[in-house]
Amino acid sequence: MPMKQSQLFTKTRREGPKDEVAKNAELLIRGGFVHKELAGVYSYLPLGLRVLNKINDIIREEMNVLGAQELYLSAFQNPEIWRATGRWDGDSREVWFKTELVGGSEIGLGWTHEEAITAIARNYVSSYRDLPFSVYQIQTKFRNEARAKSGLLRGREFLMKDLYSFARTPEELDDFYERVIIAYEKIFTRVGVGDRTYRTFASGGAFSKYSHEFQTLCEAGEDTIYVDEEKKIAVNLEVCTPEVLADLGLKKEKLMPRKAIEVGNIFKLGTRFSETLGLKYRDETGVEKPVVMGSYGIGPGRLMGTAAETLADDQGLVWPKAIAPFTLHLIELKSKNKAVEQKAAEIYHRLTTAGEEVLWDEREVSAGEKFADSDLLGIPERLVVSEKTLETGQFELKNRQSGAVTMTTNYAGTIL
Amino acid sequence: MPMKQSQLFTKTRREGPKDEVAKNAELLIRGGFVHKELAGVYSYLPLGLRVLNKINDIIREEMNVLGAQELYLSAFQNPEIWRATGRWDGDSREVWFKTELVGGSEIGLGWTHEEAITAIARNYVSSYRDLPFSVYQIQTKFRNEARAKSGLLRGREFLMKDLYSFARTPEELDDFYERVIIAYEKIFTRVGVGDRTYRTFASGGAFSKYSHEFQTLCEAGEDTIYVDEEKKIAVNLEVCTPEVLADLGLKKEKLMPRKAIEVGNIFKLGTRFSETLGLKYRDETGVEKPVVMGSYGIGPGRLMGTAAETLADDQGLVWPKAIAPFTLHLIELKSKNKAVEQKAAEIYHRLTTAGEEVLWDEREVSAGEKFADSDLLGIPERLVVSEKTLETGQFELKNRQSGAVTMTTNYAGTIL
Repeated sequence: MPMKQSQLFTKTRREGPKDEVAKNAELLIRGGFVHKELAGVYSYLPLGLRVLNKINDIIREEMNVLGAQELYLSAFQNPEIWRATGRWDGDSREVWFKTELVGGSEIGLGWTHEEAITAIARNYVSSYRDLPFSVYQIQTKFRNEARAKSGLLRGREFLMKDLYSFARTPEELDDFYERVIIAYEKIFTRVGVGDRTYRTFASGGAFSKYSHEFQTLCEAGEDTIYVDEEKKIAVNLEVCTPEVLADLGLKKEKLMPRKAIEVGNIFKLGTRFSETLGLKYRDETGVEKPVVMGSYGIGPGRLMGTAAETLADDQGLVWPKAIAPFTLHLIELKSKNKAVEQKAAEIYHRLTTAGEEVLWDEREVSAGEKFADSDLLGIPERLVVSEKTLETGQFELKNRQSGAVTMTTNYAGTIL
Repeated sequence: MPMKQSQLFTKTRREGPKDEVAKNAELLIRGGFVHKELAGVYSYLPLGLRVLNKINDIIREEMNVLGAQELYLSAFQNPEIWRATGRWDGDSREVWFKTELVGGSEIGLGWTHEEAITAIARNYVSSYRDLPFSVYQIQTKFRNEARAKSGLLRGREFLMKDLYSFARTPEELDDFYERVIIAYEKIFTRVGVGDRTYRTFASGGAFSKYSHEFQTLCEAGEDTIYVDEEKKIAVNLEVCTPEVLADLGLKKEKLMPRKAIEVGNIFKLGTRFSETLGLKYRDETGVEKPVVMGSYGIGPGRLMGTAAETLADDQGLVWPKAIAPFTLHLIELKSKNKAVEQKAAEIYHRLTTAGEEVLWDEREVSAGEKFADSDLLGIPERLVVSEKTLETGQFELKNRQSGAVTMTTNYAGTIL
């Protein structure tokens, strides 16, 4: 949907809040994309929600290509199933937010959903004919992080796309896992951080040699990875051993340590949850076997923070077109000549009809303020309508990322 | 999106869970629309999420007509602002779910968002030029309900559409409030419960004589309202006094007590929150005044439960077309004659290409099981493809609600 900027209830701010140290959050707050409620807890304002929804839609499209079915699980978790897997009181105790029902029963706020989805699947899986399948959700998670100083990069409350796969055999899991890698690479490319995002080998747990993280290079990242730029893969510190490097055909001297943000991770769970919680199926010969599972995460809000953090420049945010809140910023430079406003209105109407997502800055403020705001908001292209453009019949079109300016008489095929 | 029924990971169940007493939840669980996690806490499975998303989209469309801007506030709430309004420890204490950050600070899970949105608006409102505006979200709320036995009709965790309006004067609030009434009536009509939903006068608080509830008649409802069927309005018990009846021109003897479900409520907040939290603006003459607010809620999940509860019959669910998970149930009766399967596949492809949302039951189960499942799922229309239909060239089309059967050679303009 297009919008007139005077109608947007948020405004830009010259300075971010004093307690905010992360660049992504500072810029997103100054631009009016998000509001900080608490450390690691952000509300999405209209501009921010537009970006977030575009990321969610890209993720949904790629999940649908995998044939995964969308659902939406509750945040509240029944301790019973988590006690069965040892994740209610064990090492995971710290990460929980727990609360109490009237009457005193303790419940938790989900920080992941392996237990919940495995328990649900028990109702629907009994035969090999019920497998394989996969389900995903885009849903809010809660994690009691001790430190939350990285803005949208590490949240105590954050959106997560979590995908779970259910297969008959390790081979069937492997096939799906490889397809998820492709889907994830497509997502990061479409969101605009693909060129700096590395598939990174991490430790695999009991069921498989490795799991994989997707790490986006960024000085503000909390992780360090070891990158082979030629092969376009990386390993994390955990597995950076002579054995693993030999196994992967990597050479220690070619690996460069780089700061990075984990934007996704995928993990072969095997039968860890299906055995503990009793998710079984009968195979073609009637033998009962545990279901073979996988778990795959992406944080859409963290991805938005990563795009903000890595693509911004000194003037402000720089959004790739696919996730920008609007694709064109129409700047009307106020003039006593009514023809300028008329022309801007005409262009807004024409481009909007052509399906363009235009933010029309028709506010009564100075040209300097408009350009500064436009740079801060980071809409990919900026089109100026002024007295001068009317005289020449040429419109100035500026690319936010490259700064390149062209004079034009049309935009994306629409005459201006 | 269309779907083959064998790919749906859920299945219907003959019986609901033993601990479920509410008809809406029993049917929704048997149909595989939702999963009960705890009393008052449900997860939405693929079929249920489809219904919920359609309700959300209807609500969004009507919110956009109002010019309201969508945002998405955090669940975690900072106690500080709630202490300022007296809703952290006061009468509201019971309704909170509270939890603790590592380190010991207490935080709460939002059960409404007046405080949060008022605090945010302080950053963006200073002049009369910044008003009026309205914002809304569709977001998860948490309320520590003592009793939660009504399925989706009363949740401890539930989705809420909450709209907040910000105006300069009581008159400007009144105007918007009247427009919300129209939007709400449109929403309930589009969702399919309009004919049994009554605008109901309730007590108004300090700022206005009345607030309004929207109550849908239903034997399972927890509320009792007093209905004037001719005037199509109602009053709740709270305000059913001689004075109010005289004020509204209602006659006691014409009012019928009816059980009902509250599907929406709207409330003029006035300056209760803006004064306490310091949300002010300067008017045209430079005088500082508190912003005049309104608050307007609808529970999309509760609305889904209400449609399920009130429209179901003895055979199962009955969805209105606008919120049905699919609009057509294509039933292929299995046959040794391969032409039946081919014809079903052809029809599925053709209708899907024409934009119809078809669920194709191509499972290897008996006709009886297919028809029983179809009745339980409640898709508005059912089209049968069998050996018999191939012989006659006529297809049986059955309306789920009326039971009316017609023989046809096309569906919605598409040749079968």
